[in-house]
Amino acid sequence: MPESTATTPTDLRIDLQRIKEDILALSEIGKDEEDRGIYRMAFTDADMRGKRWLIDRIEQAGLKSNVDGAANISGIFTGKTEKPRVLVGSHIDTVPCAGALDGTLGVVVGLECLRRLVEAGIETERTLELIAFSDEEGRFGGMFGSQSVCGYVTPDSLATMSDLDGVLLQEEMRRQGYDPLAALDAARDPDSIRSYLELHIEQGPVLDRMHKSVGIVDEITGLFTWSVWLRGEANHAGTTPMDMRNDAFMGLADFAHEVPRILEENGSERSRATIGKAQILPGAANTVPGIVEFSIDVRDTSEEFLDDLSTAFQKALSAIARRRNLKFDFEQKSYLQPVACSEDIVEQLRTQAETLNLEYHQMPSGAAHDAQIMGRMVPVGMIFVPSKNGKSHSPAEWTAWSDIEAGANVMLQTLLHLAQN
Amino acid sequence: MPESTATTPTDLRIDLQRIKEDILALSEIGKDEEDRGIYRMAFTDADMRGKRWLIDRIEQAGLKSNVDGAANISGIFTGKTEKPRVLVGSHIDTVPCAGALDGTLGVVVGLECLRRLVEAGIETERTLELIAFSDEEGRFGGMFGSQSVCGYVTPDSLATMSDLDGVLLQEEMRRQGYDPLAALDAARDPDSIRSYLELHIEQGPVLDRMHKSVGIVDEITGLFTWSVWLRGEANHAGTTPMDMRNDAFMGLADFAHEVPRILEENGSERSRATIGKAQILPGAANTVPGIVEFSIDVRDTSEEFLDDLSTAFQKALSAIARRRNLKFDFEQKSYLQPVACSEDIVEQLRTQAETLNLEYHQMPSGAAHDAQIMGRMVPVGMIFVPSKNGKSHSPAEWTAWSDIEAGANVMLQTLLHLAQN
Repeated sequence: MPESTATTPTDLRIDLQRIKEDILALSEIGKDEEDRGIYRMAFTDADMRGKRWLIDRIEQAGLKSNVDGAANISGIFTGKTEKPRVLVGSHIDTVPCAGALDGTLGVVVGLECLRRLVEAGIETERTLELIAFSDEEGRFGGMFGSQSVCGYVTPDSLATMSDLDGVLLQEEMRRQGYDPLAALDAARDPDSIRSYLELHIEQGPVLDRMHKSVGIVDEITGLFTWSVWLRGEANHAGTTPMDMRNDAFMGLADFAHEVPRILEENGSERSRATIGKAQILPGAANTVPGIVEFSIDVRDTSEEFLDDLSTAFQKALSAIARRRNLKFDFEQKSYLQPVACSEDIVEQLRTQAETLNLEYHQMPSGAAHDAQIMGRMVPVGMIFVPSKNGKSHSPAEWTAWSDIEAGANVMLQTLLHLAQN
Repeated sequence: MPESTATTPTDLRIDLQRIKEDILALSEIGKDEEDRGIYRMAFTDADMRGKRWLIDRIEQAGLKSNVDGAANISGIFTGKTEKPRVLVGSHIDTVPCAGALDGTLGVVVGLECLRRLVEAGIETERTLELIAFSDEEGRFGGMFGSQSVCGYVTPDSLATMSDLDGVLLQEEMRRQGYDPLAALDAARDPDSIRSYLELHIEQGPVLDRMHKSVGIVDEITGLFTWSVWLRGEANHAGTTPMDMRNDAFMGLADFAHEVPRILEENGSERSRATIGKAQILPGAANTVPGIVEFSIDVRDTSEEFLDDLSTAFQKALSAIARRRNLKFDFEQKSYLQPVACSEDIVEQLRTQAETLNLEYHQMPSGAAHDAQIMGRMVPVGMIFVPSKNGKSHSPAEWTAWSDIEAGANVMLQTLLHLAQN
């Protein structure tokens, strides 16, 4: 047991052993024995068991627990004043066949930070609140919990959100004992929140390759996703001379070839573009492709660059369609605004990392997180810890305990600072 | 009724009306009333009804009918001598949802030619034989009838050939009253055949765009088909910087981009290369593709060019795999040797087309036909008629009656010439 007396706030450190125990305990909830992956998708029975486990741990830590109408779980460390509170959290729902850390780590670290404050008998100016948001991973669309807190959920969206099997969110909520419309009550007054902090695994290869323990996120990438159709004419692969073809797939190949140029000309070093799926019709070896439908996922941390990239991609696709006598259509499937982290919080995270003598790297978040939603409403900050080989959303997801300890101590000290000022 | 007396052989013409009637009659057999496509796949009940209809028409024409062990249907016009006979034919089995002309037209035209000779009271030196080959379209692999005639079928292949639903050829043959092993008896002595002629729709756009009634085929294209795998690493589309990716799909795009250059450098104007299907894994919009499996279908009329193209495609794929840090594998799925048509027959077809004052175009066949199998054993010749908009293997498949008449008259005169010499 850590001592609860001699520590002064700047000496205060998390207890890695308890973080390990909590991670390993949660990783048993929803684990599939066959393939070792975790299946704790939002509002499944496993997710509910996870939420109950979390409430127990919150209460064991001497924190006040709360469950809001969106099934977000909170643990509250009450401060001396009614000043806007400091939130720390992430999510405990998972994708199917998940690893043990995505989301979970941020919740467990937040819990450990608050538990440590209770033990150390520290008093803070502001209330600190751990929050585990519902359905970050998107069984029903994603970021449901943080969107509810920000007031972005409506009765209409509540009535229509469904998973890939067509199960309605409202049915699953009712089945688990929640009144779906109560999610509307989860909305908070922005003035009640000083800031939201989140620690998360990077889910990318950058920190691992740089051998840095901590990433300090300065911007969370925005993105647009399109479905694109190129329509030519399906023809016999043997009887149609090369110059009489309207080959839809070759249009896609031309486009893919242009992607690096388009990023270089119109984006930034933080731009990403990915063609992640493609369907060719009719899809026979001996038939010139008549139709190709593909996805493009484009990300940048600047809205202006995203706009420029959107224009450039449309121009390229139109030009290719004209050149190859194809018909070009696209539909925007999703759009997420980039969000800048609070400069003050970034500065504070840097200061704490330096004080702790840690190697850190300032970087964007290429993935979306609850912090992206919260960041539209309140100042946010994010800490990354390295993902071994950049892996996530798989049982191969892992982070060295020493890196987790480093990130968690930066979080603890930053929370202390924010809660006292 | 055409007159049966006053015609001399060079004046002899087919009766287009009877060809129309036969085409329309056969198009009713296996027709699906819902979508207007024809479903007369090999050894289905519809195919058997088609074969019985053909036997009836052969006998009504005063020809001797025959069914061999591979269920090939013949109509025999007996010549004055035992000299090697002249074969003319094609197939009446169809792909699913077929049009009315693919294969069928060649059989109906052959029937009309022989029927015309009977009516005209003409005697020929050689026997002429109409033959409708079984399973050209490939329910059980393709070209079963012509392969049987050439002796390429073995007890082992007979035991294992199956359709996409796993139905064995031998089961279907038994169900239709055939002894599968009798297919081995269908093999002919090459010395018994003077030549094989086939009229077929072009199944490509060339004649239609050139406004020519008749194509004279000089070579039938060979081909190889590969399944190709490029294996990289699946990663998060947002968190993986562009320069840290091993994107399998981008490897395919690079390769597709090289295809025109590879054809120009290593092939001929008759070369074709088609990427007809591709599967991306895991295939999610927000995931960098880890694996791509695709097909490439490469055709040329020269075996040497095919070899050169094979080498060049392997080199290109290896280089791309190295450049993008991917693993490259391929498997050859099929190989068909190119076949040259008989120069004498090509010359004869040209002469007859000129005598008939027809616009013709000398060209390769880009599709495989029974003539390709027969051409390994005996001299072959092929006549193409235009496919409207290049369409085939669909109910949209069509050819103007006037073009059918032109092609059929070239066939009639060429058959007459070959049978007399």
